[in-house]
Amino acid sequence: MSDVPAALYEGKAKIVYPGEDADTLVLFFKDDTSAFDGEKREQLARKGEINNAFNAYIQTYLQEHGVPTHFLRRLDARRSLVRRLDMIPVESVLRNRAAGSLCRRLGVEEGRLLEPPVLEFFLKNDALHDPMINRSHIRTFGYAHAEEVERMEYWTLRVNALLRERFAQVGLILVDFKLEFGRFAGEILLGDEFSPDGCRLWDVQSQEKMDKDRFRRGLGGVVEAYIEVARRLGIATDA
Amino acid sequence: MSDVPAALYEGKAKIVYPGEDADTLVLFFKDDTSAFDGEKREQLARKGEINNAFNAYIQTYLQEHGVPTHFLRRLDARRSLVRRLDMIPVESVLRNRAAGSLCRRLGVEEGRLLEPPVLEFFLKNDALHDPMINRSHIRTFGYAHAEEVERMEYWTLRVNALLRERFAQVGLILVDFKLEFGRFAGEILLGDEFSPDGCRLWDVQSQEKMDKDRFRRGLGGVVEAYIEVARRLGIATDA
Repeated sequence: MSDVPAALYEGKAKIVYPGEDADTLVLFFKDDTSAFDGEKREQLARKGEINNAFNAYIQTYLQEHGVPTHFLRRLDARRSLVRRLDMIPVESVLRNRAAGSLCRRLGVEEGRLLEPPVLEFFLKNDALHDPMINRSHIRTFGYAHAEEVERMEYWTLRVNALLRERFAQVGLILVDFKLEFGRFAGEILLGDEFSPDGCRLWDVQSQEKMDKDRFRRGLGGVVEAYIEVARRLGIATDA
Repeated sequence: MSDVPAALYEGKAKIVYPGEDADTLVLFFKDDTSAFDGEKREQLARKGEINNAFNAYIQTYLQEHGVPTHFLRRLDARRSLVRRLDMIPVESVLRNRAAGSLCRRLGVEEGRLLEPPVLEFFLKNDALHDPMINRSHIRTFGYAHAEEVERMEYWTLRVNALLRERFAQVGLILVDFKLEFGRFAGEILLGDEFSPDGCRLWDVQSQEKMDKDRFRRGLGGVVEAYIEVARRLGIATDA
């Protein structure tokens, strides 16, 4: 097995390997699912391949609509090739409706329409439990340059406009999502993945949750919901 | 006692009474001291009168340097007359050095110089434990208008420039402070109080804490420290 390269990094849902050259990486999508800072963990059969296909679809869709992303191509059922970014340690969270931590923090009822949408930044730091930060923290602690934050905000709003419409076309409400960005050749590119692990999607008719909240809340049918969302978008998941 | 008006509001350290007319209020400074969301409480003899004198000095100093505040005049040892503001439910926190919750949240060592200073907003809400918010929350939930936030930020930075220098003149480091603002006749005025209850001050030589952290950490000599700060600023506290 000397031709299998060592992982560069193993996260909760993905393993990152070196790519063919120094400028690329291979993302391996695991079946592992975790929530609550890793306190709840489970293996969900087929989740890795569904998320790989889902992410390939979304990243390609965004690229076709002018959003610069790290995505190059899907390699096989569980692996995708991406550009190697210098990651910015800040998550960008966009909320069209109140859900999750926002409800707890601000005492807002779940589902409340947020107009204009709320944009939040969180520091990516497991040991600190990804604390919320603002532009002032980002500037003073040097997590990113002011112009980079501007680009992150711009692309987050643009991704929201594009995907909110795309999901609405198939009867889904894009409640919220998180993005990560990185630097590549002087540009800010969208990195990481976009899948039902990192966003909330509700059926517009039944208001049923079609995302990782099914796992967080023990509702069951997690992968089935992901497959249903993929089916509506026309993504082949029987690879 | 029919001539004693009923309190409009009683907070942890102050009682607010109606003033002579509908546009004014009387602040009564209590000896009560609390910390950790009111879990630690104590009466500290003379704290009320010290803070009333301290606040009168600072508010007057700021007004003389162009900062619009609600302060009108000190009435007696424990009471001051102020304009009645329509309060904005957002606290503005300015940090020149890392201390308190910032250290816990972001894993930063106490005392680290913050350049440029960090500015944070918190929602004033006891039940929610004053959660941190950003401009996006303020806008979407209508806590304040965008121009009001601009004014709050402007005056917070101006107060910092003025007071950092004033405290430095008497050998004190202004580590951080919180401000509250309100609306009056179409303007944004500084409200609430400025005292060692709501800021951190360290002796530049000994690095000794001269503020409410003495109470939070059970270091003793709380009022003695407040009096020493007042003495250095030339504030009479033997009223």
